[in-house]
Amino acid sequence: MATTPTFATLPTYLGLSRSPAEAAIHVAGIPFDIGTTNRSGARFGPAAIRQASRMLVDGDHPHWWVDPAALPVADIGDFAIALGDIAGSLALIERQAAEHEHLVALGGDHSISLPLLRNHVRQHGPVAVVHFDAHPDTWDSEYPGQKYSHGTPFIRAIEEGLIDTAAYVQLGIRGPTGGPQDYADALKLGARMITLDEFRGRALSEVIAEVRQRVGNRPAYVTLDIDCVDPAFAPGTGTPEVGGFSSWEILQLVRGLKGLDLVGFDLVEVSPPFDPAGITAILAANLVFEFLSLTALAR
Amino acid sequence: MATTPTFATLPTYLGLSRSPAEAAIHVAGIPFDIGTTNRSGARFGPAAIRQASRMLVDGDHPHWWVDPAALPVADIGDFAIALGDIAGSLALIERQAAEHEHLVALGGDHSISLPLLRNHVRQHGPVAVVHFDAHPDTWDSEYPGQKYSHGTPFIRAIEEGLIDTAAYVQLGIRGPTGGPQDYADALKLGARMITLDEFRGRALSEVIAEVRQRVGNRPAYVTLDIDCVDPAFAPGTGTPEVGGFSSWEILQLVRGLKGLDLVGFDLVEVSPPFDPAGITAILAANLVFEFLSLTALAR
Amino acid sequence: MATTPTFATLPTYLGLSRSPAEAAIHVAGIPFDIGTTNRSGARFGPAAIRQASRMLVDGDHPHWWVDPAALPVADIGDFAIALGDIAGSLALIERQAAEHEHLVALGGDHSISLPLLRNHVRQHGPVAVVHFDAHPDTWDSEYPGQKYSHGTPFIRAIEEGLIDTAAYVQLGIRGPTGGPQDYADALKLGARMITLDEFRGRALSEVIAEVRQRVGNRPAYVTLDIDCVDPAFAPGTGTPEVGGFSSWEILQLVRGLKGLDLVGFDLVEVSPPFDPAGITAILAANLVFEFLSLTALAR
Amino acid sequence: MATTPTFATLPTYLGLSRSPAEAAIHVAGIPFDIGTTNRSGARFGPAAIRQASRMLVDGDHPHWWVDPAALPVADIGDFAIALGDIAGSLALIERQAAEHEHLVALGGDHSISLPLLRNHVRQHGPVAVVHFDAHPDTWDSEYPGQKYSHGTPFIRAIEEGLIDTAAYVQLGIRGPTGGPQDYADALKLGARMITLDEFRGRALSEVIAEVRQRVGNRPAYVTLDIDCVDPAFAPGTGTPEVGGFSSWEILQLVRGLKGLDLVGFDLVEVSPPFDPAGITAILAANLVFEFLSLTALAR
Amino acid sequence: MATTPTFATLPTYLGLSRSPAEAAIHVAGIPFDIGTTNRSGARFGPAAIRQASRMLVDGDHPHWWVDPAALPVADIGDFAIALGDIAGSLALIERQAAEHEHLVALGGDHSISLPLLRNHVRQHGPVAVVHFDAHPDTWDSEYPGQKYSHGTPFIRAIEEGLIDTAAYVQLGIRGPTGGPQDYADALKLGARMITLDEFRGRALSEVIAEVRQRVGNRPAYVTLDIDCVDPAFAPGTGTPEVGGFSSWEILQLVRGLKGLDLVGFDLVEVSPPFDPAGITAILAANLVFEFLSLTALAR
Amino acid sequence: MATTPTFATLPTYLGLSRSPAEAAIHVAGIPFDIGTTNRSGARFGPAAIRQASRMLVDGDHPHWWVDPAALPVADIGDFAIALGDIAGSLALIERQAAEHEHLVALGGDHSISLPLLRNHVRQHGPVAVVHFDAHPDTWDSEYPGQKYSHGTPFIRAIEEGLIDTAAYVQLGIRGPTGGPQDYADALKLGARMITLDEFRGRALSEVIAEVRQRVGNRPAYVTLDIDCVDPAFAPGTGTPEVGGFSSWEILQLVRGLKGLDLVGFDLVEVSPPFDPAGITAILAANLVFEFLSLTALAR
Repeated sequence: MATTPTFATLPTYLGLSRSPAEAAIHVAGIPFDIGTTNRSGARFGPAAIRQASRMLVDGDHPHWWVDPAALPVADIGDFAIALGDIAGSLALIERQAAEHEHLVALGGDHSISLPLLRNHVRQHGPVAVVHFDAHPDTWDSEYPGQKYSHGTPFIRAIEEGLIDTAAYVQLGIRGPTGGPQDYADALKLGARMITLDEFRGRALSEVIAEVRQRVGNRPAYVTLDIDCVDPAFAPGTGTPEVGGFSSWEILQLVRGLKGLDLVGFDLVEVSPPFDPAGITAILAANLVFEFLSLTALAR
Repeated sequence: MATTPTFATLPTYLGLSRSPAEAAIHVAGIPFDIGTTNRSGARFGPAAIRQASRMLVDGDHPHWWVDPAALPVADIGDFAIALGDIAGSLALIERQAAEHEHLVALGGDHSISLPLLRNHVRQHGPVAVVHFDAHPDTWDSEYPGQKYSHGTPFIRAIEEGLIDTAAYVQLGIRGPTGGPQDYADALKLGARMITLDEFRGRALSEVIAEVRQRVGNRPAYVTLDIDCVDPAFAPGTGTPEVGGFSSWEILQLVRGLKGLDLVGFDLVEVSPPFDPAGITAILAANLVFEFLSLTALAR
Repeated sequence: MATTPTFATLPTYLGLSRSPAEAAIHVAGIPFDIGTTNRSGARFGPAAIRQASRMLVDGDHPHWWVDPAALPVADIGDFAIALGDIAGSLALIERQAAEHEHLVALGGDHSISLPLLRNHVRQHGPVAVVHFDAHPDTWDSEYPGQKYSHGTPFIRAIEEGLIDTAAYVQLGIRGPTGGPQDYADALKLGARMITLDEFRGRALSEVIAEVRQRVGNRPAYVTLDIDCVDPAFAPGTGTPEVGGFSSWEILQLVRGLKGLDLVGFDLVEVSPPFDPAGITAILAANLVFEFLSLTALAR
Repeated sequence: MATTPTFATLPTYLGLSRSPAEAAIHVAGIPFDIGTTNRSGARFGPAAIRQASRMLVDGDHPHWWVDPAALPVADIGDFAIALGDIAGSLALIERQAAEHEHLVALGGDHSISLPLLRNHVRQHGPVAVVHFDAHPDTWDSEYPGQKYSHGTPFIRAIEEGLIDTAAYVQLGIRGPTGGPQDYADALKLGARMITLDEFRGRALSEVIAEVRQRVGNRPAYVTLDIDCVDPAFAPGTGTPEVGGFSSWEILQLVRGLKGLDLVGFDLVEVSPPFDPAGITAILAANLVFEFLSLTALAR
Repeated sequence: MATTPTFATLPTYLGLSRSPAEAAIHVAGIPFDIGTTNRSGARFGPAAIRQASRMLVDGDHPHWWVDPAALPVADIGDFAIALGDIAGSLALIERQAAEHEHLVALGGDHSISLPLLRNHVRQHGPVAVVHFDAHPDTWDSEYPGQKYSHGTPFIRAIEEGLIDTAAYVQLGIRGPTGGPQDYADALKLGARMITLDEFRGRALSEVIAEVRQRVGNRPAYVTLDIDCVDPAFAPGTGTPEVGGFSSWEILQLVRGLKGLDLVGFDLVEVSPPFDPAGITAILAANLVFEFLSLTALAR
Repeated sequence: MATTPTFATLPTYLGLSRSPAEAAIHVAGIPFDIGTTNRSGARFGPAAIRQASRMLVDGDHPHWWVDPAALPVADIGDFAIALGDIAGSLALIERQAAEHEHLVALGGDHSISLPLLRNHVRQHGPVAVVHFDAHPDTWDSEYPGQKYSHGTPFIRAIEEGLIDTAAYVQLGIRGPTGGPQDYADALKLGARMITLDEFRGRALSEVIAEVRQRVGNRPAYVTLDIDCVDPAFAPGTGTPEVGGFSSWEILQLVRGLKGLDLVGFDLVEVSPPFDPAGITAILAANLVFEFLSLTALAR
């Protein structure tokens, strides 16, 4: 019904093959950004992450000593979207996601997590969710009557029963963005919200232990909004929120998920037009590398 | 139903008053860009044009010696849009436009011309259209099944009988962007297309004379996509097309409309994230100044 | 005598009303930067902070759960300055400041703190000063014979008896910028200087306790030069100094002032031309939000 | 001996297939820039041109009404180079070029024209050369003893007998860059140099006629250094030279080559780090499109 | 009284010697920009022009075949200014200028032309002035009571009898910037104003002939505000005005001054923070090169 | 054999004299970057560091209270390099270095450490090396058969016996860049590698103590690749690696070297085209200042 948009790009992540048939794990770009409420540009996120990943080609993980590129993983290119139509686009993304069992998604804005979660739940039942973000993204609606946007995927997901809320952890939440109900809504929905303030008051290892304990042996989905990181480390994003994680902290937090049953991953909200030195895309490419390394360790 | 988006801005064009009641002519921003197919960012266009207009405060027009700020004109701020919903947004824009008799619109992407034309036509009947653009914007659809985008407003307008096609002139068309049917579609619909190539082969005065003759004494709407200008003069736009007008040429072309019965104007597709030195916004602010000067001359 | 400069802007901070009559607290921009000795551009600071503040509209403070926009606060626009005349400008700023009882100022360069302090002292007598900065700004003169510049406001203020030096705390001082006498001068004048080095060697809570103890129940003025923060977090400033606070640290330090008798605030030295991703303006907008939240808590 | 460098990229020009076997014409990137004497960065040229070409996907040429993508043409990716070794790299480029009969090269700096010419001459004998450039590139050496750099390919080519100097035309030459012997050397070698000054004094059609007459029915190689265009239209290049062609003029000049026996083409010196709004890459992508359209017309 | 400011730089134009004693002609930077009314940053102009001039080292002029570096010319570095004090700075500049007989000045904003003119007039009596600019710069005052700014040097100069108004020609004037009296004031003062509009309606050679005829054999001062050029060619300036000269045109206009008795030259208003690709500085460096070539021809 | 390249610059570090004869310590720029494997541009590093150093002129060190400019130190300008020829360039650098007893080098890419080490070893015998870097730079070759590049200087140095491997400490190593053998190779060669991970797990003072203990009283060379710092603090570099030192940490680490017998220093890999706000150059200028302060303390 829709075709690949003009801004979709062709290079592959890590220089991976483009042949889905030979791979169990599929990396895909989702160049969708009309759900953004402030700075747009996340449509160019997949292209920038892939370009930045070239520095990682042929590298082993420096801590786990595994090589993600040795996984049976292919970069299948970009999903099609429906121009100017968020509802239509989410449906289209869901339909395309359904063709892939194990998907690693490069956003695009955070709206895309909803159709991706639907796909994973169809396979695994309600999943644990480890959600890195500056914002809870559980507004009922950002604009009156607008159920879908980059600020609502997780309330929708909970309403649809996609998330096992006993194992839904949010990390990095902070800042005055959004209305007074932001945090209250998230808590009411059952999320365990570890704000930046709480995080800074505890040992990193303790936080990791809590996340691991909550997720347990459930199938877990990891969604990482790059704005969980401080704008110094990730300026190129749509709604930057000061006072966030450093790059080193987010690396440790993702490494802390080692051994969990990770069934899917998305990295969202990289906006290249606001990333003049390219450091946001480089961080994002590394975080996908971290996630794939965890996957490699599990095999 | 929808509220003003986060990215809407508050400064006024030319430092104009914000009180619509005291003014017959209303300048409004329409921070809408989800109809863009390539680079996004036109949502920040109104803010950038207003900021750039500050250099023009208290200036007379250097050729006509009129002062647009002396007109009964107010900057009424930005229209609301429906997030992530192009059809809903166009309806909402139309509803808001209906509250203004004489509107000068700062885009946003070119999609907004359709609801603006509907409003003008309700008042004046089918209008002549002087359309500055690199692209005819008369695709049947840019994405299968997608009737509305920044590439389709004028086919929709013609289908809806909004344009008096005997007086529809396109200027600046060029470039390979879009499919093979671009130009053919436009011509079939009745547009008089003056391509850049034709323009360069004729005297500027001759081109102006033809436009004036075609429009005659009809009520005329002027729509100016900043990409009619060469990327050297207007880099900050969504679909830059090489080989366009210079800034001097576009100034002369707009001045050439003096004396026509100009009932409305929009200036669209200024994308500040791709305008690092701000020169696109400065050119746009000047072109709005030119248009208002024509209006001042007519009173 | 002077009028609003061309580069002054019109949007409001937090979307606040522009009607001073209805508000006890007035936010004002002071687009003055000719006191800068290195990179200029702080004249565009107020406009950038206001634009960046749009992300904060309708937000509650995530820690204190108050809404600064619910205060009786208005954004009264920008002060006029005297072009090319620092002494004249400071006089003019002082005269305009005198019309406002409770002022929150968006700079502009640090020169403006002197006339602002004069105004507050007229109301409150000598004030405690909490001064966040990379530099002590207590040079006798940066250029021979030049008493006023962005490096001298606090020596002038002390000479004029505006500061209760028993309660004058400088935080964030570091770096080799300026001459050998920088630190010595500041100490001689009575400032309690907490350098970055001292700060890193103590617990943040301990530093806050000391500041609170020194200020006590005196009326206190807070002046925040954005260069107190590291260039990674605030690149867009005139004299960036490496090795500064992180964004999280500065947020905590401002929060630590809760309950003090805060009578005035300025945030200075945001220079948008050197802030390509806009993160400096975003941090500044948040710090003003923090200060207004403290004010809201106190009512 | 060498492998594909880190900075080589994978997207394709115009979205073309990557299968050389199915195509007679091969587009290749040559991410080589160590021959540059001023601003580096041309190594990222092929990636930027390909990314920019996405706006041209599915477009017909607006003048010739042909579709270059319908040619039997493939984008074979990037050539390998020898790091830090210009002589070794040129040899390596020559070896790779030899595997392709009909090559369209995306540079990279101008050094690459020498090995490309060698390859074409092996097939066709000495060729006519149409050379668009701000500089003659016929220095004997830019650095003492350094025979190869981006300022010397054409003197080397003439010494090696690769160019039929009776049909060697340089267009766009101007500017004080380089030493006093620049122009004299070029003329002595037999080049017909049409400086910008001469160009501006003649009709464009007349210049085209002279080029066509000189080339006649010889096999012709076209080399286009993007710095032939004015920095306003092509800022992203290594040695920008003011007072150059406009984008419209260079489009006409390339179109003027229609019907000549064009055996090869390179477009060089696009340097993305100095192209903040991307307009240089867009112009370059269009000029390759123009060249392929000429090829399509000839079949 | 004042010392060299922090932002003053040390490289030399064209790599010239820094020894004034050995040279009759002195190039000097004047890093002064507090007279600017819109975008600041011209204080970094001299540094950027010198850096850009490195591309011109060892080059002959491509039209006149002279080498400006062969002149007895030295780059004496930057003038001191008085921080935050326009009146004091202009006095200081005048005092320093008095030490040089033949000065070529790199601005800095246009305010500096006044003290430079005073110096030349002391030597030569009232001079002819060839003034390239988008604005007449003959406002009585830009801010009430402010006699000195970058918009007033020429009214002051005329009042002081520095200019032989029978030989005062302004070229490039255009645009609505400034108030209604701009042009009228200039004309009243006796300037021959050749607006951009008039320029475009005449042959370039005719315009040059008129300038030459008016100047005759008077000693002539040339002042070139880079904003005479269109923002496409010179984005990095304080008050960009659309519709200006192309780079080729300004080169021809300066060349047209050959043979006049040129006693001084300034090039002003290059603002590097708004020049992301550096093309404004490159153009400025070339225009100084053109002027020095004229000087070389005259010897 | 080669001459100073076009991109070499003339301002001096800290405004130092350019007269080598009067100084025992020589600061020199080495504008060489063809050994870079990813982003180029380090050739402009020396110019940017010098420009950034102007903020430090006349400053005392804020911790040691010494003034580096009071040392007998001169900035001798830039070394010549051999264009496009890494082997030739390294030889040429070595030859030039031999003329200086005590050299502080501003890179340029990391390749230059090899010839610099050779020079120091000629004077001192094998030296201890304190090596700050994100990468071990001890690959056998980055490209097949290519012995010299910015990734290989230290394996070459060890092979040549230049380094006393008992006192070779690497700090800051991290990230997946490079192949699986990176770390293993470095360890095998005898380097004591303190990865970022290890660093974060220990007290900073403990790390410093270990470095001091290993170096002991050997003559020590310090090489600082700016990419040891996180991209947030140093975006302008060729191969940015996330998760690095903060600016404060690297300052402390360099200060920790106080009292060691420091015989030479280089700071490499600053790439200005990727440093839009200039913060990388500012950090680099400060780190050179730190090193010179250590030298001043030792006298």
